[in-house]
Amino acid sequence: MLRIHPAPPSRKGRPPLLPADRPVRSMPVILALAVCILGSGPAAASLRRPDITEDHSRLADRIVRTALENEEGYRMLAELCSLGPRLSGSGAMDKAVEWVKARMDGLALDSVRLQPVMVSPWERSAVEEALLLDKEGAVMTPLRITALGGSVGTEASGMTGEILEVRSLEEFRRRAGEARSRIVFFNMPLDQGTPNTDLSYDDIVMARMNGPDAASEAGASAVLIRSLTTGRDDVPHTGVVKYSGRVRPIPAAALSWKAADDLSAALRSGTGRKIRMRLGCRRLPDRPSANVIGEIRGTEKPDEIIVVAGHLDSWDLGTGAHDDGGGCLQALEVLSLVRRLDLHPKRTIRCVLYADEEFLSRGAAAYAEAAEKSRETILAAVESDRGVFDPRGFSLTGSEDCLARIQSWLPLLGKAHIEWVRPGDGGTADVSWLKQARTVLGLLNESQRYMDLHHSGRDVYQEVNSHEMELGTAAITILSLMVSEEGLPGRGE
Amino acid sequence: MLRIHPAPPSRKGRPPLLPADRPVRSMPVILALAVCILGSGPAAASLRRPDITEDHSRLADRIVRTALENEEGYRMLAELCSLGPRLSGSGAMDKAVEWVKARMDGLALDSVRLQPVMVSPWERSAVEEALLLDKEGAVMTPLRITALGGSVGTEASGMTGEILEVRSLEEFRRRAGEARSRIVFFNMPLDQGTPNTDLSYDDIVMARMNGPDAASEAGASAVLIRSLTTGRDDVPHTGVVKYSGRVRPIPAAALSWKAADDLSAALRSGTGRKIRMRLGCRRLPDRPSANVIGEIRGTEKPDEIIVVAGHLDSWDLGTGAHDDGGGCLQALEVLSLVRRLDLHPKRTIRCVLYADEEFLSRGAAAYAEAAEKSRETILAAVESDRGVFDPRGFSLTGSEDCLARIQSWLPLLGKAHIEWVRPGDGGTADVSWLKQARTVLGLLNESQRYMDLHHSGRDVYQEVNSHEMELGTAAITILSLMVSEEGLPGRGE
Repeated sequence: MLRIHPAPPSRKGRPPLLPADRPVRSMPVILALAVCILGSGPAAASLRRPDITEDHSRLADRIVRTALENEEGYRMLAELCSLGPRLSGSGAMDKAVEWVKARMDGLALDSVRLQPVMVSPWERSAVEEALLLDKEGAVMTPLRITALGGSVGTEASGMTGEILEVRSLEEFRRRAGEARSRIVFFNMPLDQGTPNTDLSYDDIVMARMNGPDAASEAGASAVLIRSLTTGRDDVPHTGVVKYSGRVRPIPAAALSWKAADDLSAALRSGTGRKIRMRLGCRRLPDRPSANVIGEIRGTEKPDEIIVVAGHLDSWDLGTGAHDDGGGCLQALEVLSLVRRLDLHPKRTIRCVLYADEEFLSRGAAAYAEAAEKSRETILAAVESDRGVFDPRGFSLTGSEDCLARIQSWLPLLGKAHIEWVRPGDGGTADVSWLKQARTVLGLLNESQRYMDLHHSGRDVYQEVNSHEMELGTAAITILSLMVSEEGLPGRGE
Repeated sequence: MLRIHPAPPSRKGRPPLLPADRPVRSMPVILALAVCILGSGPAAASLRRPDITEDHSRLADRIVRTALENEEGYRMLAELCSLGPRLSGSGAMDKAVEWVKARMDGLALDSVRLQPVMVSPWERSAVEEALLLDKEGAVMTPLRITALGGSVGTEASGMTGEILEVRSLEEFRRRAGEARSRIVFFNMPLDQGTPNTDLSYDDIVMARMNGPDAASEAGASAVLIRSLTTGRDDVPHTGVVKYSGRVRPIPAAALSWKAADDLSAALRSGTGRKIRMRLGCRRLPDRPSANVIGEIRGTEKPDEIIVVAGHLDSWDLGTGAHDDGGGCLQALEVLSLVRRLDLHPKRTIRCVLYADEEFLSRGAAAYAEAAEKSRETILAAVESDRGVFDPRGFSLTGSEDCLARIQSWLPLLGKAHIEWVRPGDGGTADVSWLKQARTVLGLLNESQRYMDLHHSGRDVYQEVNSHEMELGTAAITILSLMVSEEGLPGRGE
């Protein structure tokens, strides 16, 4: 499996960057490191031994150590978060695009570019209010809510409606006849009984995305959902609502866990029945945003590409530190580590930081379309979009042969705490658009804390642990370099 | 490996507790669950099938779900932490002992008792001050310090000394001749470049424990150490100092990461050279404390014991939420889960919450001595003392056969995110005293965040995540029940 590279000519100091149009036989990654450890010249010759595995192992150790000690991605994340929340199409997102580009320029990559993407921005307002009313219509208590992303606002004077509480989409369908002129309350908590909260998220997110249209079709005036959270607190979590355009869009907001409990209890006891609600959010005209793309071209097979990816846009309540600022900076740091360690991968490693993932994934669509048109050969597309907690494993979509090859690297990946590589499509919202990719991989991090802060005001830099984030960076870097050096089996290979 | 249990007589409702002196054939754990799921009576008979693995699997699922949904240990931890920090021999430790005992009594265990332990208490004082002085003796800046546990205080008026900075115990030995009348500054950072910070902790902790005596022997007046932390902040971390009694004990304190950096920089630049230091801490007279021990007696082999353990004492700077309040409540919750799920283990499961681990481990010594004397048959002793973060694996000391048997349960343990069981003695500070135990196991949790808060004011309830803690509880519960039901191979078996 692990092939021996020819011994390179010995080199001192940092070799010049490779011009894109002149493929040069540069020092392969593994040997670059070995030379660095053992000294150049005579030592290089001693590496013509068969057990090159040892050098892979040293390289992996060095990647882990450098990532953890330098904390570069973690420190970059502080800067990125200080620009403000990167809502798709917002001014802060524009600034973030420029900031990433400047960072990539600073790494003297072989290519840095912006890929234009038209997006449909949306703006939250300070006006986000829900008041629980008693039977006489007097205010009992305010409930913490936040508008779902893309929601239409209410009339400026607000709206009032009786509540119809349902515990599943199926119950809603059964009781659709009761929805007319009412506010439908989708009260579906995430399953707290499973360690894999993402599974129950996948089930319930459909209610968030499609519930408002379903309710509108039944004549409802608005929708409230219980936040998709594991945090038993008073922090509401947003997320996108998808209006089909077939029915009148109605306002939609998320209640905090506590507010949902309070509302449900009031309905059950009969003390409260109505909500008065105001949302000032609104859609803005379409405007341009961009994917940011930078790469280090391969020395031997520059047309074979490894994509490392995250999405640069975020929600506006926190600063998108975990979702997905951290993932973006892990992807960017792969390139930075390759540079800092003076490695020269055989194949091209390309960092793609996507626009608009949280709304319509127009960034993913744009890059996939262009890649399809230009018939890019993508060996692997690796995404980090599951919070930057401690890494556990990779999901993989691809052939059995590819899976087996990547699993054979587990002793190396394990140095960054990767325990397994399993078939599946978790954590690949953007790269799964790349239908021609030989493999699509998602970095799956420890998830117990993620749904406490996901899409909420708690998704801030202070919630990120440097070591956890940097281990993820190391994991993606080791994986990318192994694909670069060893390739992946293609169809019929 | 997995044996089939005889079908029990069907039972309705909760069976009475088993009196200690009357071994009764009660419902084995697995069948209790199966009956609970499938209904009692006729269904029980249908369980006489060979694939009992399926029932183990369901039981493990149910344990994970119950632990995560109920969050009982996590909620108990809030109560325990509200009693205040449980410094060995302190009033709050006494309260905690009573609190745990009351909790155990509430579970109607088969036996609850306090095992007396004499401890040597120590008291911190609000007087903890270190001032960096310039060459003229003027105060440049205060440095954040905290007395090491057990340290003697300074004179009330304080002391002043020139600093001798060393970067290893070995360097100190080489330069011992320069130490006379000076304050020795052990500036040894934890290795930030490894994901296993505990390894580098084990190296450096010797300087904290034994450095003060070594410095005193060389005539030094006091010791400052860089806190054993991965937190690049201004929070000092304490930990025990061990005076041998052979030399005069000298005051010893820990600097925060930032203070250690500042001091080192001042020494390097020559701007600062001396420290003025005051510590008001002191030893108090010996007094009694206790281990708290509760158990559920085995229905078939009550004399074969599984110990689940943590240490109830803590440092005084935070509230010992991770170290080791969380670990204690995981151990206690094993018994609580067995009760809540109405299980009747074949072998005895005993929860031992130790006193005095942070100082002299007198609790561990007392229990080990008594267990040795009474020739207790301890099949497995499982400790949780590595912070209550997401579980990763178990360390194991024991025979190859025991290792293999426990590893064969990984499909079950994996439901609580246990990835491996590996030889080693990590995380077993208390139970490793049990020389007659057939296996000694430590729950090894994800450690990236642990050394940021370990032994510091940051070790508080707010740093604990319910899901992470409860998964650990589930892991220990599954392990304990499997040992209870299947046993472990003994010597010559």
